[in-house]
Amino acid sequence: MEVEEEVKRVVDEVKELHDSASSFISSSSQQETTLRQKASAVDASIRRLHSTLLEEDLHRARCMLSDGDTSSFLPSKPQGRFVRMFLGPVNVRALRKDVQLKVKEEYNSYRDKTALLFLFFPATLLILRSYFWDGCLPAFPVQLYEGWLLFLYTGLVMRENVLRANGSDIRPWWLYHHYCAMAMALVSLTWEIKGQPNCVQKQRGVHLFLQWAMMQGVAMLLQNRYQRQRLYTRIALGKAKRMDVVWGETAGVDGQLWLLCPILFILQGFEAYVGLQLLRAALTGVVAEWQVMVCGILLVVMAVGNFKNTVETLMAKSRFKAKMKRSKSRAELN
Amino acid sequence: MEVEEEVKRVVDEVKELHDSASSFISSSSQQETTLRQKASAVDASIRRLHSTLLEEDLHRARCMLSDGDTSSFLPSKPQGRFVRMFLGPVNVRALRKDVQLKVKEEYNSYRDKTALLFLFFPATLLILRSYFWDGCLPAFPVQLYEGWLLFLYTGLVMRENVLRANGSDIRPWWLYHHYCAMAMALVSLTWEIKGQPNCVQKQRGVHLFLQWAMMQGVAMLLQNRYQRQRLYTRIALGKAKRMDVVWGETAGVDGQLWLLCPILFILQGFEAYVGLQLLRAALTGVVAEWQVMVCGILLVVMAVGNFKNTVETLMAKSRFKAKMKRSKSRAELN
Repeated sequence: MEVEEEVKRVVDEVKELHDSASSFISSSSQQETTLRQKASAVDASIRRLHSTLLEEDLHRARCMLSDGDTSSFLPSKPQGRFVRMFLGPVNVRALRKDVQLKVKEEYNSYRDKTALLFLFFPATLLILRSYFWDGCLPAFPVQLYEGWLLFLYTGLVMRENVLRANGSDIRPWWLYHHYCAMAMALVSLTWEIKGQPNCVQKQRGVHLFLQWAMMQGVAMLLQNRYQRQRLYTRIALGKAKRMDVVWGETAGVDGQLWLLCPILFILQGFEAYVGLQLLRAALTGVVAEWQVMVCGILLVVMAVGNFKNTVETLMAKSRFKAKMKRSKSRAELN
Repeated sequence: MEVEEEVKRVVDEVKELHDSASSFISSSSQQETTLRQKASAVDASIRRLHSTLLEEDLHRARCMLSDGDTSSFLPSKPQGRFVRMFLGPVNVRALRKDVQLKVKEEYNSYRDKTALLFLFFPATLLILRSYFWDGCLPAFPVQLYEGWLLFLYTGLVMRENVLRANGSDIRPWWLYHHYCAMAMALVSLTWEIKGQPNCVQKQRGVHLFLQWAMMQGVAMLLQNRYQRQRLYTRIALGKAKRMDVVWGETAGVDGQLWLLCPILFILQGFEAYVGLQLLRAALTGVVAEWQVMVCGILLVVMAVGNFKNTVETLMAKSRFKAKMKRSKSRAELN
């Protein structure tokens, strides 16, 4: 019978395919393990040599190792607990460089898109409040905005965890910063938006929160712009890998730095101010809700952390410059 | 100089490693593509033959294809928009079978753990309400619970998306169901928990919501138990792949089915009842918040969807049985 023959053929095909799939998976995981071991070994030697001398060849080798195809086999930061909590034990690390770069690019465009919304969403609410709503925000649009914030920060911090797993050098502080922001968005959702009478006083906390969010939008836009330029410059100079995320850092494009740094410090000051205002409102009993207290504490923590991070980066930058100078003059002496 | 030699050696090593990494990645992605193409072709032939006849050999071939190592190369359902929204364009599909199974097992244990909490968390709140809080729930524990629900459902639906991408047969309805539940948790967070006086009437909505959640916990526990038994039975019978998630479905272990089915229908009826109560409370103006309305609609949608899904599965089961009988009697005639 014709059909029976076809069934037999298909069954044989499946068996064959099964064998080749099994052997492919086992051989490729073996090769992967070997590559991983070799990559770790070479990485360790480079690190050892790097601590004793600053040589150009070594630097180039380091870039090749961490920006080329080998980078997929370097030991990566362990996949964060955050991703595991939401996704389970899935591997989010890409083997191929082009996929890794796609992830990075998508992260950047996500940031660009959200930064704009970040600015316009609270700005619109504040404008409507002044001109249409007589100083009294209705609950629904504010809650919609808070829900969106929660979604946004969750997406941001997930992507940052994925980038980290893919070998990006993103500073851990930015992840903590976004965890705090997530917590704040969640807490603010439970925050009752009280109406008339005496709206202006009762909504003082929400008002401050929206102002802070708008400022955050400005900071994000500036940082995105700066980060991109800086990353391209650093890649051109061979100082950065393409997976690096440098936003918020302040080393590199010196000309723009003198613009960005003061703005960042002002924004951090404003963040701390809003936090302290909220704390005052909570402590003096003007707005006696636990949400006001928690948001106040979170804002102060974020402001202090941001400030510390910015200063540390500035110091690391000046140390790096000094080291470069010393090694140059040593090379000239030799 | 000794150090210079070592640097040279390391640089050479890096170059070599870079080349072997590149060639490994390109050759393995080529092989992967070939395997994918072959797997798709065989899968198509099996499907074609399967629609015309029900043969044991063919069935076994199908199981080998979709439960063996080849399954990693079968075309998978496109990675859901939901995962992309939070994670960006990351591949969450595991190549190796043992990793896939680990993902599946983690999902099951996640469900077990959460089902227990699902039962005890709202039950504790309701008990405390009756015996300690004089019928008046304080805001904070309820909001804590709602935040936890949001987190839980997000984790659940993320994991289900990952399972789908890894070739699990999970019914799309369960994902929609969890999207609805997520939306409800988010909406309930914005829901003001009003205090005295007249607490019982004002908190009617929250009270109903907690009762529903407790029932949901009972349903989850029963389904988890049933699903596991059924999955093991089906695997033993060769009817299911190990990646399948069958909870809420009602085909298989017939003895238990007569227990589970009525309970499921009762729970669905209760879900619809709670939804309608909420809608009534919203429409008659007893609790005039938009959250009550939205939660009511979502509950009714979920109840109807669950009912439809259960009935469909029962019908699919009886169709399958009829087909089996027919093919058996045909085989006997031959």
